[in-house]
Amino acid sequence: MSSSLNVINVGLSTFANSVEVAGGNAVDVEWRPPADGDIAAGKALANMVNSQTINQANQIAFDKYLNARPILESIGRAGDVLPGMGERTILHSGPPIDWQDVCGPVHGALIGAVLFEGWAADENGAKALLKSNEVTIDPCHHHNAVGPMAGITSPSMPVWVVTNSTDGNKAYSNLNEGLGKVLRFGANSPDVIERLKWMQTTLANVINAALSANDAIDIKTIMAQALYMGDEVHNRNAAATGLLLKQLVPSALRSGLPTDDIATAIEFIASNDHFFLNVSMAACKAMLDAAHGVPNSTMVTAMGRNGVEFGIRVSGCGDQWFTTPAPVVDGLYFPGYSIADAAPDLGDSAITETAGLGGFAMAASPAIVQFVGGTPADAIARSKEMVPITLGRNNALTIPALNFSGTPAGIDIRKVVDTGIQPIINTGIAHKEAGIGQIGAGITRAPLACFTKALLFLSENLTA
Amino acid sequence: MSSSLNVINVGLSTFANSVEVAGGNAVDVEWRPPADGDIAAGKALANMVNSQTINQANQIAFDKYLNARPILESIGRAGDVLPGMGERTILHSGPPIDWQDVCGPVHGALIGAVLFEGWAADENGAKALLKSNEVTIDPCHHHNAVGPMAGITSPSMPVWVVTNSTDGNKAYSNLNEGLGKVLRFGANSPDVIERLKWMQTTLANVINAALSANDAIDIKTIMAQALYMGDEVHNRNAAATGLLLKQLVPSALRSGLPTDDIATAIEFIASNDHFFLNVSMAACKAMLDAAHGVPNSTMVTAMGRNGVEFGIRVSGCGDQWFTTPAPVVDGLYFPGYSIADAAPDLGDSAITETAGLGGFAMAASPAIVQFVGGTPADAIARSKEMVPITLGRNNALTIPALNFSGTPAGIDIRKVVDTGIQPIINTGIAHKEAGIGQIGAGITRAPLACFTKALLFLSENLTA
Repeated sequence: MSSSLNVINVGLSTFANSVEVAGGNAVDVEWRPPADGDIAAGKALANMVNSQTINQANQIAFDKYLNARPILESIGRAGDVLPGMGERTILHSGPPIDWQDVCGPVHGALIGAVLFEGWAADENGAKALLKSNEVTIDPCHHHNAVGPMAGITSPSMPVWVVTNSTDGNKAYSNLNEGLGKVLRFGANSPDVIERLKWMQTTLANVINAALSANDAIDIKTIMAQALYMGDEVHNRNAAATGLLLKQLVPSALRSGLPTDDIATAIEFIASNDHFFLNVSMAACKAMLDAAHGVPNSTMVTAMGRNGVEFGIRVSGCGDQWFTTPAPVVDGLYFPGYSIADAAPDLGDSAITETAGLGGFAMAASPAIVQFVGGTPADAIARSKEMVPITLGRNNALTIPALNFSGTPAGIDIRKVVDTGIQPIINTGIAHKEAGIGQIGAGITRAPLACFTKALLFLSENLTA
Repeated sequence: MSSSLNVINVGLSTFANSVEVAGGNAVDVEWRPPADGDIAAGKALANMVNSQTINQANQIAFDKYLNARPILESIGRAGDVLPGMGERTILHSGPPIDWQDVCGPVHGALIGAVLFEGWAADENGAKALLKSNEVTIDPCHHHNAVGPMAGITSPSMPVWVVTNSTDGNKAYSNLNEGLGKVLRFGANSPDVIERLKWMQTTLANVINAALSANDAIDIKTIMAQALYMGDEVHNRNAAATGLLLKQLVPSALRSGLPTDDIATAIEFIASNDHFFLNVSMAACKAMLDAAHGVPNSTMVTAMGRNGVEFGIRVSGCGDQWFTTPAPVVDGLYFPGYSIADAAPDLGDSAITETAGLGGFAMAASPAIVQFVGGTPADAIARSKEMVPITLGRNNALTIPALNFSGTPAGIDIRKVVDTGIQPIINTGIAHKEAGIGQIGAGITRAPLACFTKALLFLSENLTA
């Protein structure tokens, strides 16, 4: 009896080709060795991949994340409300970095923050101060905070205060300034500082008056609604900003504040579709901080970039960062700009992907491909691609186009190292020079090396 | 030489089955005879299907529709602004109907309108008046207006005034009262009348003040954005309502009106995700009226239901309605209700489908299937299904999930009769008794008989 030859080929595709040339059927399995062939990581992975200890730890961490209920509480003054910040510190995005090593946008934004605080009279004075080490430069993440792009947050700046009402932990983020010439892209001219002063006073007052007169604003509910309205709440926040505004306006109106202040504040918010981004980020930070610090857990609780290095933190690895050089994003550039103009990947906003939003929830946001590239079908494929590297689904954040299944969430460093599937990130792209602003947007991937390093670290620090 | 048997079967599937039983391959073509086998209509169709006269007329009508630019102008008093309405007329949805024939919700709403106007002191007085013919009952469509559900519009009611700035024609719609016990579902209790009085005064004042201080609000732009945000702007208007609110709020604040009035008006709008529906309907009416009255055109310019009959109007058929009994919708019913409780299909809101929105743009609104039934894949399939019966795409209203192609628009009665594909309509379902309100939502189809009647009429009234 002669039967046909059916082959499953793992590895080099030339083997499969020769089977087909000989008249058989061959299926190529897309496969690469775990840990991309790194033998030490491969051995660590072999010990960890089926560990019940780790699985149980991850279940605890993932449940903490799922059960978190981030509430928008108020706007506070950073120096007053951020734990351990004090009065002579400026926070930045991503893992730790020194003044002399920062990228262009962070450089410009740090100078802007010194000028905003009045610690120096001009740019040269600001540089001298920053060089003198009289001002501490510290990651936002070290103070339960997050900031998009440069992430620069100085003591007098207003910050969103978000409370996870389930566990009581708080998270913080600065306020979104809009697009164009803004501090987070490194601009520090007088108009930028003036806008920050207005945000510190009028805008913060109006929002605080509205929040204090309001019932608790449940951020996850806004996010869930926004996912039904084409946002992925990282690079698209048009619906979420509108939903937030809808809740703030009536109570702002009844606050007794001057009508013109209220109108100006509302116009500012209404004209910036990214305004909700920083709220989204603080909420994601609150959800993930709840999951942080579970011994032996391999769940990623932060991904951030300082424009030089990409870093991640892992629930079971304490305050350790695992870093590698930040990639430059090959995205969609605005007219007149190209990848040659781009700063390396920057900002804490990948906290949204860490929480299963942004790129992970891209299937909810077909329109975003016009901003970051690709087709609506790609957007759906990218959300699905994240399923094998995550601990589960967040059924409070569902995606209509995926038949209302929850967004994939809870990145497991074991699964990333095992499959080689790198977490996807929808990101804005900053010009490498300070102050020019956003020059594009695109899709990037968290570098594998961060996950391998974290895996090796944890394999030597397991508590059981 | 023996080759395998491959058959394409048109007609009864039993023929195909026997081919397959005998070992061959058979493909069934889904086909039914044009005009559903109606010989007269089939003959008329044969004469019209390739008519260059009709094709040219349709191109004119379709271009008029495409080029229309509906602008939200103001809120007016119906009796003052609706052409030919006068002071002793009440308008209703759908084709013409007499008082003694109306369905439950329209019955209740007509009584409510008489009470609202103060033309009678109580329900019995209102009934006597309506029976006496001292009050004219007329379709909204006969006065360039549209109204959802019962569509009841009396002279003192506020109406949206929408101008097609391309051709200057105007269209009108009443204001959305929200869900629950409301006039458009036939409720007429004192709280319903009181709400209508508040809408007539406070709400209309606030919106008018905001509109007069605003730049022209381009409704098609809001619709286009809303299609990127999960609305189909018929049964889902959550995004569009927010987008409208965002434009109205700052200028309302600067109007100098009492803050409490502004706050109450904004709360009313913000708490009703359907508020934009009536704006959407008036805009669709303005776009389609621009296309109406082109001799020999087979483009549908209105579909409406009065709760008893379903009717359509066609560009080349003048003011003629083509009607047939309205179907009862087999949709998703709210808990405690079933199809036995439903009024037949009701309302002018199918003007949105006539303009390529609503069910035709359902691919933009995957989340709506939770409201009207089906899966997100069905939603995409339904938009695609409308392509063969429409004159083209509206590239100002694109749908991300269809790779940003325009929504199918401009229903051609020839194509409907030829293919038997009935236009799809996303619709709310009213309780058959007055005043109970909405009891469900679902997907229905425009009855084929309306299109066949229109085709036969036009075939005898072609001008060339």
